[in-house]
Amino acid sequence: MNTDSPADQFTFGMIGLGTMGRNLLLNMADHGFAVAGYDQNPAQSVLLEKEGVGNKVKGFTQIEPFVASLKSPRVIMMLVPAGRIVDSVIAELVPLLDKGDIIIDGGNSHFTDTTRRDAELEAMGLHFFGMGISGGEEGARRGPSMMPGGDKTAYQYVKPVLDAVAARVNGDPCVTYIGPGAAGHFVKMVHNGIEYAVMQLIAETYEVLRKGLKMDNEAIGAVFADWNAGRLQSFLLEVTRDIFAFREPGTDHLLLDMIKDEARSKGTGKWTSQIAMDMVTPIPAIDSSVAMRDLSKYKSLRVEAASIYGDDIQPLAVDRDAFLKSLEQAFFFSMITTYAQGMHLLSSASVQNTYDLNLGEITKIWRGGCIIRAAFLETMLQAYTANPSLEHLLVAPNVTDLIRETQPGIRTVVSSAISAGIALPTYAATLSYFDAFRSARMPSNLIQAQRDYFGAHTYERIDKEGVFHTEWQGEASVKPLG
Amino acid sequence: MNTDSPADQFTFGMIGLGTMGRNLLLNMADHGFAVAGYDQNPAQSVLLEKEGVGNKVKGFTQIEPFVASLKSPRVIMMLVPAGRIVDSVIAELVPLLDKGDIIIDGGNSHFTDTTRRDAELEAMGLHFFGMGISGGEEGARRGPSMMPGGDKTAYQYVKPVLDAVAARVNGDPCVTYIGPGAAGHFVKMVHNGIEYAVMQLIAETYEVLRKGLKMDNEAIGAVFADWNAGRLQSFLLEVTRDIFAFREPGTDHLLLDMIKDEARSKGTGKWTSQIAMDMVTPIPAIDSSVAMRDLSKYKSLRVEAASIYGDDIQPLAVDRDAFLKSLEQAFFFSMITTYAQGMHLLSSASVQNTYDLNLGEITKIWRGGCIIRAAFLETMLQAYTANPSLEHLLVAPNVTDLIRETQPGIRTVVSSAISAGIALPTYAATLSYFDAFRSARMPSNLIQAQRDYFGAHTYERIDKEGVFHTEWQGEASVKPLG
Repeated sequence: MNTDSPADQFTFGMIGLGTMGRNLLLNMADHGFAVAGYDQNPAQSVLLEKEGVGNKVKGFTQIEPFVASLKSPRVIMMLVPAGRIVDSVIAELVPLLDKGDIIIDGGNSHFTDTTRRDAELEAMGLHFFGMGISGGEEGARRGPSMMPGGDKTAYQYVKPVLDAVAARVNGDPCVTYIGPGAAGHFVKMVHNGIEYAVMQLIAETYEVLRKGLKMDNEAIGAVFADWNAGRLQSFLLEVTRDIFAFREPGTDHLLLDMIKDEARSKGTGKWTSQIAMDMVTPIPAIDSSVAMRDLSKYKSLRVEAASIYGDDIQPLAVDRDAFLKSLEQAFFFSMITTYAQGMHLLSSASVQNTYDLNLGEITKIWRGGCIIRAAFLETMLQAYTANPSLEHLLVAPNVTDLIRETQPGIRTVVSSAISAGIALPTYAATLSYFDAFRSARMPSNLIQAQRDYFGAHTYERIDKEGVFHTEWQGEASVKPLG
Repeated sequence: MNTDSPADQFTFGMIGLGTMGRNLLLNMADHGFAVAGYDQNPAQSVLLEKEGVGNKVKGFTQIEPFVASLKSPRVIMMLVPAGRIVDSVIAELVPLLDKGDIIIDGGNSHFTDTTRRDAELEAMGLHFFGMGISGGEEGARRGPSMMPGGDKTAYQYVKPVLDAVAARVNGDPCVTYIGPGAAGHFVKMVHNGIEYAVMQLIAETYEVLRKGLKMDNEAIGAVFADWNAGRLQSFLLEVTRDIFAFREPGTDHLLLDMIKDEARSKGTGKWTSQIAMDMVTPIPAIDSSVAMRDLSKYKSLRVEAASIYGDDIQPLAVDRDAFLKSLEQAFFFSMITTYAQGMHLLSSASVQNTYDLNLGEITKIWRGGCIIRAAFLETMLQAYTANPSLEHLLVAPNVTDLIRETQPGIRTVVSSAISAGIALPTYAATLSYFDAFRSARMPSNLIQAQRDYFGAHTYERIDKEGVFHTEWQGEASVKPLG
C-alpha cells in the first residue's frame, strides 16, 4: 500500500467511531498510518482526536469532506451495526466514490448480506470485502484477529495496514485472506458461535460449583484462575477469573452478584446454528447455548417454575478435590468438542459455499487477538498441519488422546449433575454428540422406517443399492422404487 | 358450501395426485363430493379414477379442462412439493381463474412463503389459504387433522368439505380455523417439529434397550407394544410397535434391520428450530433431534470414530424390570417436555406474528388424524381448558403432577446412559431444559458480565433499573448509561 500521500490526505478512513471503530483507527495511527474517521455524532469524533493526539488522526461529522480527505484509491472501512444500517451507509457513500475505491465491512454482517453487497458493489466497479474482526474493544486497540474475505486484489492493497495492526503470535500477524465472497464473515460468525458455547460452558461450570459444591465466589474464582494457568488457558477463562475478582466499588460483594441473569445476544450465535442446520452439519453445543440464552430471558416463568418444582439443590455427595479434577477434564472435553463442531461447520462451508477454506490458517489467526484464543489452538494447529484435509478434529490423533483422557471426567460430572438436578445442557450436549459420533450404527434406521410407514418417504438398505418403499400395514410387500 | 352443481361440474379440484392429494380427494368422494384431480403424469390420473370408481371422480392431465370443470366459485387445492413448484403452479393457474375463486395450499410450505402468496393472491382478487394437513397417506384417505389459516371467508365456504373428511374424536372433526395469514402452515410446522423430537426419543429408546439392556428385537417390540397400551399411547408408538413386528417377506429377520441408519428429512423440523431461535423461544428437544438426523448422515466418519474410540457398550448394571419402569417414566417426561416446548413456540408466534392462536383448539384437532396424536393430548386439552391463557404447559397443575412423578425415571435413565456411553441426546436435552427452566436464577449473569468485559455490551442489575457498563480491567468504575 502506497503511503506516500500528500500531507493533507489520509491513508485509511473509518465510518462509525464507536468503541470498535475508534480503537481500530487509533491502533492504525499508532503504527504510523494517517487515518480519518467519520461519525454523525460529534462526541465520537472529538473523542477520536483526543485519544489520537500526537498521531495523524482526524475526525469528521460530515461524510463529503471525510471522503474527500482520503487519498486515491480510497480505503474505507465501516464498523457500524449489522443489517440495514450497513446498506444505508453504502448508499450514502457510493455516489461520493470513484471506481477502484475499496469498501471494507468490518462489522458482524450476516454472510448472505455480504454475498449480496459483494455482487452489487463489484457491478459498480468498486472493490468490497467483508472482514470479521474479533477481540472486542481491547483487541481493536492493541491487536485484533481479522478475517478478511472477498475481493483479493483489494485485500492485497490493504494488507500492510492489517498486518501492522493485527495481534501477533510468534511474530505472525493474526490476519490472513480467508476466501472469496462472504468467507470472512462466515468464518467470523462461526468464531462467535464457538464463543457462545464456551461462554455457556463457563456459566455451567459456575452453576455446578455454586449449586453442587456450594462454593463461594472466592473459591469459584480460584478454580477459574487455576484452570487459566494450565492447559485450559484461554481468553474467556482469563476474563472470568477477572470477573470473580472484581468487587463493586465501595462494597465487599462482587459486581457479578448484582447482574441480572438474563443474557442478551446480537445474533451471531443464532445465525451459526441456523446455517449449520441448512448445511446439515450438527453443532449441538452451539444450539444449546443459544437455547439457554433464550431461556434466560423468561425470568418470571422460571421463578414460577421454581416455586412449583423447587430449585434447592442438595450438595453433591462427592469428594471435592476429585470432583474438581473431573470437572477440569469435563471442561476440556466439552471445549474441544465445541471447537470440533465449529471446525466441522467450516469444512462444510468450504465445500458447500466453495470458500476453499484453509482450516490450519484459520486456526493460526485465532491463536491471538480474538475472543476464542486459547492454548488449545496450538493443538488444533498441529492437527491441521499434520493433515490439512482433516475432516473432523475428533479423529485427529493428537486430539484423540485428549478426548480419551478427559472422557471419564465428563461422564462423572454430567451424570452427577443430572442426578442432582443441576442444568448442564451444553456439557451434556457435547457428550451426547460424542457418543452418537462414535456410533458406527445409530438408531436412525428406525426413523427411516417410521417415515416410510406413515409418509411413504422411502428408505435405503444396507445390503443393496436403491430406494425402497414398503406397505407396512397391508400385505407385506417390499417394493424397489425409481 | 353449495353442492347443487350441474352434473357435469365438480365441487372440489386437486392439483397434484401423489399419494396425499389422491387419497384426500378419494376421501372427499367417499363423502359424496364431486371431485376433479389434475396431474401432468397420466398414471396418477388413471390411478385416481380407478380407485375412485363408483364415486364422482375425474382425473385430468391438462390444466385448462380441469379448471373449466369446476363449479364457480372454484375451490382448488394444491398438494405439491413445497418451494418453487408451488409458485409455478400458482402462476399457471391464476390466468385461468375468476375473481372470487379459492386456492388452498395443502402442502408443507414454509410459512414465510405463505405470507407472501397470501398478499399476492389477495391483491388479484383471489381467496387463498394455507392449510397444514397431517396424517400421512392413511390419514389423508381415512381422516386427517387439518390446520387451515388465512382467508377466513374462503375457509367458511370450504368448511363443509373439510369437516366431512377430517378425522373425528368424540364426534368433533379434527379441523378448525387456526388464524390469519400463514398461521395454518406455522402450526403445522411446529406439529412436525414435535414429531421429529418424539421420533428421536423413540429411536433413543431403541438405542438404550439394544445397547444398554442388550434386548433383542422381539423384546424391544414388546416394550413399545406395552407402552402403546398405556398412558404413552400414541400413533408414533403404534407405528413403532408394528415396525418391530414386520418381518421381511420370505425371511425371519425384521425389515428394520436392513434399513440404513441415515435419516432423511424434508425440512420442517429444521425450520421449526430456526424460527424458534428467531422468536427467542428455546425448543432444545427439537434442535437436538434435527442435529441427530444430520449426524446420522456422516456414516463413514462415524465408522472411523467408532474404530478409534470403540462403540462396544457394556450392559447396564441394572435390574431390567426396574430400569424399564424408569424408562417408561423417562419417555413420558421427555414427551411432555417436547410438547411443552412446541406449545411454548406457538404462544410466542401467537403474539409475535399476531396469529392470536387458540392453543386449546389446536390441541383438540391434534387428538385425531395427525402424526403426533397421543393419549396425552387429552391432558393437554384439560390444561388449556382450565386456563386458556396458560403461558407454558409445564406450569399447568395437571401436567405438574406428571412431571413430578416421572422425574426420578428420567434422571436414572439419562445418568445410566451417560455413564455407559450410550447417546440419548434428546432425552438429556429435555431434562437439562427442565432443570434450567425451574431455576429462579440461572448462571447467565456471568455471560452478561463477560459480554460487558470484552465487548462493552452492557448489563442490567437486579437492584436498580437501567443499563450499565463497567471498565472491568481498568480502575474500578461502574457507569450507568443512556
